[in-house]
Amino acid sequence: MEIKVVKKVLGVNDAIAEEIRKLLAEKKIFMFNMMSSPGSGKTLILEKSVAALKKEFKIGIIVGDICTTRDSERLSKTGVPVVQINTEPFGGDCHLGANLIQGALKELDLDKLDIVIVENVGNLVCPAEFEIGEDKKVVVLSLPEGEDKPLKYPLMFRVAQIAIINKIDLEPHLDLDRKKFRDNIKKIHPQITLFELSAKTGQGFKDWLDWIRKQARNKIA
Amino acid sequence: MEIKVVKKVLGVNDAIAEEIRKLLAEKKIFMFNMMSSPGSGKTLILEKSVAALKKEFKIGIIVGDICTTRDSERLSKTGVPVVQINTEPFGGDCHLGANLIQGALKELDLDKLDIVIVENVGNLVCPAEFEIGEDKKVVVLSLPEGEDKPLKYPLMFRVAQIAIINKIDLEPHLDLDRKKFRDNIKKIHPQITLFELSAKTGQGFKDWLDWIRKQARNKIA
Repeated sequence: MEIKVVKKVLGVNDAIAEEIRKLLAEKKIFMFNMMSSPGSGKTLILEKSVAALKKEFKIGIIVGDICTTRDSERLSKTGVPVVQINTEPFGGDCHLGANLIQGALKELDLDKLDIVIVENVGNLVCPAEFEIGEDKKVVVLSLPEGEDKPLKYPLMFRVAQIAIINKIDLEPHLDLDRKKFRDNIKKIHPQITLFELSAKTGQGFKDWLDWIRKQARNKIA
Repeated sequence: MEIKVVKKVLGVNDAIAEEIRKLLAEKKIFMFNMMSSPGSGKTLILEKSVAALKKEFKIGIIVGDICTTRDSERLSKTGVPVVQINTEPFGGDCHLGANLIQGALKELDLDKLDIVIVENVGNLVCPAEFEIGEDKKVVVLSLPEGEDKPLKYPLMFRVAQIAIINKIDLEPHLDLDRKKFRDNIKKIHPQITLFELSAKTGQGFKDWLDWIRKQARNKIA
């Protein structure tokens, strides 16, 4: 019975996601959805990405959190428009549904944007199940989380087209083999695009930025 | 409408949790529920805890994962009985419900146990909402996840009676202040019992083991 209800909710969600997809096609906006466990470093990756790209592209950000406006405060300092969604009034939802994204997009001036970045609620499980009309899903996995996570939370790695392995600067201090991270991600999703980087040191960051540039230019063209 | 459905499901769940609570009282078994983000180190903490305590207490473990039996394979090496719950056949549930725990307890010989440890699905959001009949809820937060997590995922820290800050051995390699972790946890839940430890090096581990000893002895007595 529970499953039936979930399916019904997902049906409504997918219909709204489709409306968003059409709107973004019309407005020629590239939107990606960043998902991860809490604490993988999504916000720092976005702070540095927006700082590097904001002269080339007009960027807007939608940040989802159950509570607090900490991430949106951090991201607002980049100078681009940020819309915070707190899911606590919606039952403390563990993900951003398409309805919340649709509402947040109304707060942004879409005629003046090339890229919309969605920072989802920190959760490696539930956000994977909800389409939000994005062009690409990006999953971030940080090195301290351990190389077995793609095998244990496969849906997220199956639906994401891009995986980022973050915090590679910590590798010398951890008992792990970075190759296993790559292998386990590829085992779940062989065609996934993989970036290995440190948002802290900047190592490996250029390839990730170039990927955003290429995606945004394709959508604008 | 979605919220009403969730409430109904929670009502059924709480009734089963109450049955479990009565069963464990009768059998004089201390059960705790370990919850955290993916990759906080729950399994390593449990491996070391069970190895240290298995001569003093008869321990059983219930491990929840969406997929894979990796954690139960690791924990089985401690020599104590382990029951693996994979939630994938139940819609890939992001938490362990009381019904799944009730089924798992039937796989254990409760007359021969003093302690049951539940390792929940790695998720800092959803498991907080589901009572499973446990005596105590323990939340694990690892240092690399960042000190703002208690503020961003407050429900988990509100419902847990015990918080463990793990991976303190990484402190020299991270840009953070461990005091802020403590302060933010206490801000959400001033009376919480706090342990700071490294499952890897063993630092701070004794206090945590003593806490388990005390709880189990109280329940057995």
